[in-house]
Amino acid sequence: MNAPAFLASVQPAGRPLPAAFLQALQQRFGSRMSTAQAIREHHGRDESPYPPMLPDAVVFAASTEDVAAVVSLCAQHRVPLIPYGVGTSIEGHLLAVQGGVSIDLSGMNKVLAVNAEDLTVTVQAGVTRKQLNEELKSTGFFFPIDPGADATLGGMAATRASGTNAVRYGTMRENVLGLTVVTAEGKVIRTASRARKSSAGYDLTRIFVGSEGTLGVITEVTLRVYPQPEAISAAACSFPSVEAAVNTTIATIQLGIPIARCELLDALTVKAVNAHSKLGLPEQPMLLFEFHGSASGVKEQAEAVQQIARDHGAQDFQWASTPEERTRLWTARHNAYFACLQLKPGSRSFTTDVCVPISRLAECIVETERDTAASFLPAPILGHVGDGNFHVAILANPDDPREAQEAERLNQRVVTRALKMDGTCTGEHGVGLHKMDFLIEEHGDDAVDLMARIKRAFDPLNIMNPGKIVRV
Amino acid sequence: MNAPAFLASVQPAGRPLPAAFLQALQQRFGSRMSTAQAIREHHGRDESPYPPMLPDAVVFAASTEDVAAVVSLCAQHRVPLIPYGVGTSIEGHLLAVQGGVSIDLSGMNKVLAVNAEDLTVTVQAGVTRKQLNEELKSTGFFFPIDPGADATLGGMAATRASGTNAVRYGTMRENVLGLTVVTAEGKVIRTASRARKSSAGYDLTRIFVGSEGTLGVITEVTLRVYPQPEAISAAACSFPSVEAAVNTTIATIQLGIPIARCELLDALTVKAVNAHSKLGLPEQPMLLFEFHGSASGVKEQAEAVQQIARDHGAQDFQWASTPEERTRLWTARHNAYFACLQLKPGSRSFTTDVCVPISRLAECIVETERDTAASFLPAPILGHVGDGNFHVAILANPDDPREAQEAERLNQRVVTRALKMDGTCTGEHGVGLHKMDFLIEEHGDDAVDLMARIKRAFDPLNIMNPGKIVRV
Repeated sequence: MNAPAFLASVQPAGRPLPAAFLQALQQRFGSRMSTAQAIREHHGRDESPYPPMLPDAVVFAASTEDVAAVVSLCAQHRVPLIPYGVGTSIEGHLLAVQGGVSIDLSGMNKVLAVNAEDLTVTVQAGVTRKQLNEELKSTGFFFPIDPGADATLGGMAATRASGTNAVRYGTMRENVLGLTVVTAEGKVIRTASRARKSSAGYDLTRIFVGSEGTLGVITEVTLRVYPQPEAISAAACSFPSVEAAVNTTIATIQLGIPIARCELLDALTVKAVNAHSKLGLPEQPMLLFEFHGSASGVKEQAEAVQQIARDHGAQDFQWASTPEERTRLWTARHNAYFACLQLKPGSRSFTTDVCVPISRLAECIVETERDTAASFLPAPILGHVGDGNFHVAILANPDDPREAQEAERLNQRVVTRALKMDGTCTGEHGVGLHKMDFLIEEHGDDAVDLMARIKRAFDPLNIMNPGKIVRV
Repeated sequence: MNAPAFLASVQPAGRPLPAAFLQALQQRFGSRMSTAQAIREHHGRDESPYPPMLPDAVVFAASTEDVAAVVSLCAQHRVPLIPYGVGTSIEGHLLAVQGGVSIDLSGMNKVLAVNAEDLTVTVQAGVTRKQLNEELKSTGFFFPIDPGADATLGGMAATRASGTNAVRYGTMRENVLGLTVVTAEGKVIRTASRARKSSAGYDLTRIFVGSEGTLGVITEVTLRVYPQPEAISAAACSFPSVEAAVNTTIATIQLGIPIARCELLDALTVKAVNAHSKLGLPEQPMLLFEFHGSASGVKEQAEAVQQIARDHGAQDFQWASTPEERTRLWTARHNAYFACLQLKPGSRSFTTDVCVPISRLAECIVETERDTAASFLPAPILGHVGDGNFHVAILANPDDPREAQEAERLNQRVVTRALKMDGTCTGEHGVGLHKMDFLIEEHGDDAVDLMARIKRAFDPLNIMNPGKIVRV
């Protein structure tokens, strides 16, 4: 398999683990550690199209103390480590570019506390978002952040994830109240109390949110939860153009209408969804809306948005009012990724993730569509349009150098365009391996130098998911 | 004047400014720099009851380049510097404990951009919140964060301020999109693009928000703004007890009712407000509410909250529906601080600022009232009860050692109690000088050690507002 150009410099060094280290690990963890090829392979890849790079060993942690023990051993023997949840990241975050130990946190899957009066929950890092919502069902609360994949909450915190609900509820940045973290020295800290707000010193919580395992290992997460809305309704609406859909969104937000979801699918994505989910949606740009609130509030919101959409030349709303219809609609949206892959059987998606000020979004998407139309690769677009964030799923065979290069070329163009529009190279997926150069392009050398100083200050031995985010 | 015990170790060293430094400063800034006693005195104090400590010189900056020039000179000559807005902080943030230069940013008061479609504005650090809202009036947008004082937006970012609207709109943490910062080396960086969300590397924005001038000088701030609500209404409501008022708030939030403001005044504060603003409010615990939304949405919210309040034994709402009545009500609330000072003429307020999970708030306030009732100092309580944040305005003469000690003793008890309840020592005022030991008590040595590493990494010469937040 041909590795993309940016991976050329990060081939695993292949230094074997020190025998004393392996022995200590075995003694502490017994059957909860493994060097089996199959297990290492499972932990040396993510959902990206990049070739796997295997860790030398995998430890299945059951507690914060377990994690602290692994990290202490790694520090003692200068062995790299990578925290692992369920492997849904897509920028090469989990690739063991220097070998070392993968710490699998998926067994740390207990909901530790539900504080209903405070609207907070505390979970172990391996709890997934669907599991949390299942456990919250009877309490009247829910956790809104929904990146599509059933990721772990530790992983979502580590990549600063968001998704379809962020336009109303914010991202992990806004919804993590505090973390338990194992530092690079194997110490256990809590980054914050359970107070809703605090001005007590540097914001350690926000430093670890989005740090992708490079500064410490997140083992517990305290989150804000929300009352389940009294009423929910959802609708699909077709537009004559991407501009019309984006302008509808802008007008909606400017009026302060608190839409809970507002998702854009371009015509190609609708076509893919129709084929995959056996739907008969008009193959035009489409917005999917969801409204949360009181019964009358939801009605009022929906009427207002429908009027705005009409003013922008949209067709009538197709309502999904029952839970079953809603589930069908959002399942189709969530499966859009898999639907798109079917447009080119055998392909993987090289997925872009730019986010721009919403005033530039239509322009950014239209120019991008011009690029992709001229390419030989199919590249459907779908986006969290209320946030200015969209994904191009560039479909290519990673084993075909011509296709992989073309995918990377398109990706670069999208990022460069977004940065010119005062946007970011990644709205929600993170930097990982793939976006380290884009990060410098976006922030400039001096700002990235501050990031590197944080990395060196927190992880002087450079053992925490080394080779990701910033070079040190 | 007797300095409180915690100030004993931070008496100014009094090293005079190097002559070459002064000369270079004079050459660059001419009449925009001063060493006059009156100007130094104005810049060596804040709203705290602590004795002033004067900077050796004051520079009036007009641009980011000015700030970069001062910082570069300070770095070259190892001279401490302190950013200064309008001096409304209250934890000793501005005291020049090691002398040096105060950089007055109040002249940097231009609104640089209003991006209506994106709901963002970019301002120079010296723009105050009232000025911004005045300039936004005709645009249909407003900036909600309201700490009472007409602080600068740079200062509000630097202390992670919040205030009465945070229960709905969040704090500066959530509402700063990006910053322009002059680093300790005099370099100019932007911490983020104008995208609403980003996963691009460590969250530099959130590191500088709340850093109190100790990591860099904030010179420009990009903020989220919000559509002016279609309808606003406000009401006051008296309760038989603090518990009843807090439980009403908890029930309101649990139902997902999006109250915009929810402020608690205890009986003593109501008494002070009555005397000061010539009102006839019942002298019992009271909540002040504000509702934002559509006309029908506001009506629905208000009816729901009124029912909850009734269920908790409250009296009827006293409505303030016209803008004039609303202004009267919130002016009374904002003047509560001055009203309280009149309870003990000649006193200053030693103001606590704890924030606890709301489930513990009633208990925390009731126990605190027991303390203050047993004290010889008057200590009215008012709070941003929807966030779990409240202030005790302990009224004492700072020149009377017995009173100052008693004020500090009460303060300590409030903080210790809040920390036991998984709260924070400061919800919105910051650490400054006063809370450096509380910070350690709250976070523990290992977490504060990480903060100290950030300080050393960003400011290796320790010239940026030295002696605040963390000891290095």
